[in-house]
Amino acid sequence: MAERGRGWARAVRGLLLDVSGVLYDSGAGGGVPIAGSVEAVRRIKASGLKLQLCTNETQATRESFVRKLRALGFDISVAQVTAPAPAACHLLRERGLRPHLLVHHDLVPEFAEIDKTNPNCVVLGDAAENFTYANLNEAFRLLIGMEKPVLISLGKGRYYKETDGLKLDVGAYMKALEYACDIQAEVVGKPSKRFFESALAELGVPPEQAIMIGDDIVNDVGGAQQCGMRALQVRTGKFR
Amino acid sequence: MAERGRGWARAVRGLLLDVSGVLYDSGAGGGVPIAGSVEAVRRIKASGLKLQLCTNETQATRESFVRKLRALGFDISVAQVTAPAPAACHLLRERGLRPHLLVHHDLVPEFAEIDKTNPNCVVLGDAAENFTYANLNEAFRLLIGMEKPVLISLGKGRYYKETDGLKLDVGAYMKALEYACDIQAEVVGKPSKRFFESALAELGVPPEQAIMIGDDIVNDVGGAQQCGMRALQVRTGKFR
Repeated sequence: MAERGRGWARAVRGLLLDVSGVLYDSGAGGGVPIAGSVEAVRRIKASGLKLQLCTNETQATRESFVRKLRALGFDISVAQVTAPAPAACHLLRERGLRPHLLVHHDLVPEFAEIDKTNPNCVVLGDAAENFTYANLNEAFRLLIGMEKPVLISLGKGRYYKETDGLKLDVGAYMKALEYACDIQAEVVGKPSKRFFESALAELGVPPEQAIMIGDDIVNDVGGAQQCGMRALQVRTGKFR
Repeated sequence: MAERGRGWARAVRGLLLDVSGVLYDSGAGGGVPIAGSVEAVRRIKASGLKLQLCTNETQATRESFVRKLRALGFDISVAQVTAPAPAACHLLRERGLRPHLLVHHDLVPEFAEIDKTNPNCVVLGDAAENFTYANLNEAFRLLIGMEKPVLISLGKGRYYKETDGLKLDVGAYMKALEYACDIQAEVVGKPSKRFFESALAELGVPPEQAIMIGDDIVNDVGGAQQCGMRALQVRTGKFR
């Protein structure tokens, strides 16, 4: 057993880390680091292990997200962050889709280069305060008016933990629109296999030599395992 | 065929009518009657057929709902309206449930006699402008904090038509909370069998002698048929 354990650990060359609930709890004023996590990231980097953050964060551009993490003490660069919005932009371009955005204000710059005139799809992110009755009705009306409604959801999380309590995540609003329009959303971000694959590509490590660490059993653990990686669930964040 | 047709019509003693999309299109300023509907209600009453409105309306008490319909020209009394809120109150009392209400402001008086301290369930109606991000998070947190979350939904409609366009109905928000909490809501109102049965009881007519008329294929037509009634779908309202 000891031998096998050592062999297993030796084979690991890269770590994918979820961020919210693993490195920090988000919230007003930027959130707070989870005890020991700043030091853990420092040690991972010192050990020579490759590190990539694999997040469904859609309340900010990667640039401002990284600024926030650095302010909390994490030594992270933009290239070390795999997030849904850039993946969605890739997909939109690939398929000639022009989105109506129902996303957080601070995420909008990620879509600056994308043609948004005369929308033929809806992109849904964790819009937070932008999840108003009026905005949801607007997204719904656009979808129901399309011959073939296309709803792209930046993740499908059920909820997450902020410093002032649990919050509904984008998945809940995705389900509302799916039900109202009788459609199925396309999920970009965790747990999509394609998303983990692009995180691994950025890491430059094959799945069997990487481990995913997260607090969500479906989006982090399940998604990574489907990709041939090992995965660990931490007991911080939304873990109950 | 003519004989059978006449026989079929002779057997009908009562009509259940959906309201929104059948008698009127709701909206700002009270909405507008659908062409011919005021006259139709007058003729139904003159013919001696029994009439009961069977509605999932939860944006007003039955009293103010009837006032609105009377102002539009419909000769209707409160006793002629079967609506979800009174049915929910019955269920809450029966099971000793104390609700947190996520409903329209104007519906709150229907729950005046119900103990709402220290809630052990959530009652969800078509809250319209009350469907804010904060209010949805609050309902979610209460549910996820319960040992056995109980969500009672006043209907499960996908959307409805108002004078200024389609609106998401309570069913969409029900799905959001169901998904976030991994639970199944209990639906009071159409298409619940129990709801149609109480409408028939108020009408005093057995299901085989009654017809349901509505614009929703699931909530009106499907629900009534499950109850042993015949049902007709009109091509007004949300019909597409």
